[in-house]
Amino acid sequence: MTIDPSLPAESPNLVKGHVCLVGAGPGDPELLTVKALKALENADAVLHDTLVPETVLALAHPNALKIAVGKRAGRSSAKQADINAELIRLARKGYFVVRLKSGDPAIFGRAGEELAACRDAGVAVSVIAGVTAATAAAASLGVSLTHRDHAQRLQFVTGHSRDGTLPLNLDWAGIADPHATTALYMGARTVEQFAREAIAAGLAPDTPAIAVENVSLKDEQIWQGTLATVGNLLKAASPEGPVIVLVGRAIKA
Amino acid sequence: MTIDPSLPAESPNLVKGHVCLVGAGPGDPELLTVKALKALENADAVLHDTLVPETVLALAHPNALKIAVGKRAGRSSAKQADINAELIRLARKGYFVVRLKSGDPAIFGRAGEELAACRDAGVAVSVIAGVTAATAAAASLGVSLTHRDHAQRLQFVTGHSRDGTLPLNLDWAGIADPHATTALYMGARTVEQFAREAIAAGLAPDTPAIAVENVSLKDEQIWQGTLATVGNLLKAASPEGPVIVLVGRAIKA
Repeated sequence: MTIDPSLPAESPNLVKGHVCLVGAGPGDPELLTVKALKALENADAVLHDTLVPETVLALAHPNALKIAVGKRAGRSSAKQADINAELIRLARKGYFVVRLKSGDPAIFGRAGEELAACRDAGVAVSVIAGVTAATAAAASLGVSLTHRDHAQRLQFVTGHSRDGTLPLNLDWAGIADPHATTALYMGARTVEQFAREAIAAGLAPDTPAIAVENVSLKDEQIWQGTLATVGNLLKAASPEGPVIVLVGRAIKA
Repeated sequence: MTIDPSLPAESPNLVKGHVCLVGAGPGDPELLTVKALKALENADAVLHDTLVPETVLALAHPNALKIAVGKRAGRSSAKQADINAELIRLARKGYFVVRLKSGDPAIFGRAGEELAACRDAGVAVSVIAGVTAATAAAASLGVSLTHRDHAQRLQFVTGHSRDGTLPLNLDWAGIADPHATTALYMGARTVEQFAREAIAAGLAPDTPAIAVENVSLKDEQIWQGTLATVGNLLKAASPEGPVIVLVGRAIKA
């Protein structure tokens, strides 16, 4: 974060000094929205999650400055305050700054903190929605996440809180509801504990559970099991890429 | 559903006799994914929800047959069995059939029933994920749906069950969790009852609640209120377009 460029001579952007939080989707470049693609093509700078693949970054304007910032589960990454400061600094130089986030910015992306920092600094900021990992995983599996008779609620929870552990204040009764489908984000390391708590709260151990690593990418991997087995399946496989776990009867319906 | 065309002479498709469930996103054609756009451009037939705007349908191959099927809240629409039969019939004629669904197919889209019908009939079927209304609404509002300290769970519920009423078996304790954000889909007519039940289950009446009609479209409308007021705001406005309601502290954070 020490690079201090001047605005490229041939800046493609029409919107000077603006931060745009852009959902990169799950990884497949074709799962970018048209709007996200246009933002990338017009970017002066792209601050991207380390999870965003090279094939997506390659779609940015060739002159665009690319800066990797957080987040990779279990590894140190740029601090949020530093990311906020960099967004503001580059926007104030007149850049059209794309903050490229895995999935959708509004879901476990800490968008609220970046939006607040930009607004507090008087920097214009906007958001482009993206495809989130849970629905991309459902598409890969060819399943629905809801069912009008037996899954009328769909919930997303994070397996990775501020310190990397399962969040303390999850509503386990709500998670154990057999009429809900649950997607556990960033839970490769905490899914065993998640499953134990969900079972203790009353969710049947034989509830279908499917883990997907590197959703939508060529090296996508799928582990089909149950709430009781998915933790061990993942432990044995030790996936290195991002993992989402889907739990519920609807995914087998 | 009485049209019985033969395969267009210049069919653009390379994948004969295939059904693809495609997420159209919330309405803005630029919120289609690149993959969805390509599917539309290669379609022989497009069976689309009536909610999908003309500007999206216009992106389909000019020779593509376009058939409107369900769903529009409160109005009669094609029966699911008829939709399933039409998908299968057209695929068996060799068509590349796009089943274009508002938002994402896996979320309140009855994709499970269409997938099962195609598989039972031996018809190849795939899914392309889309941007769902909740995150598109968050993007319009410039808010996050999660917050790492006070909203570690995000839940989607439908306000429109099989008979148009609120589903009977919603987990109200889970919905009333103050550490969750809730998106109520298709709830324009049932949000008052939803709010009453959520408040009865313990969610604070002053919890922020924002309703958005026609998310991402030019005529998008926003009503900002609280759980206690959002029902009356919508009743007074009587929106005709699809409405999503976001509830939770994170959307004001």
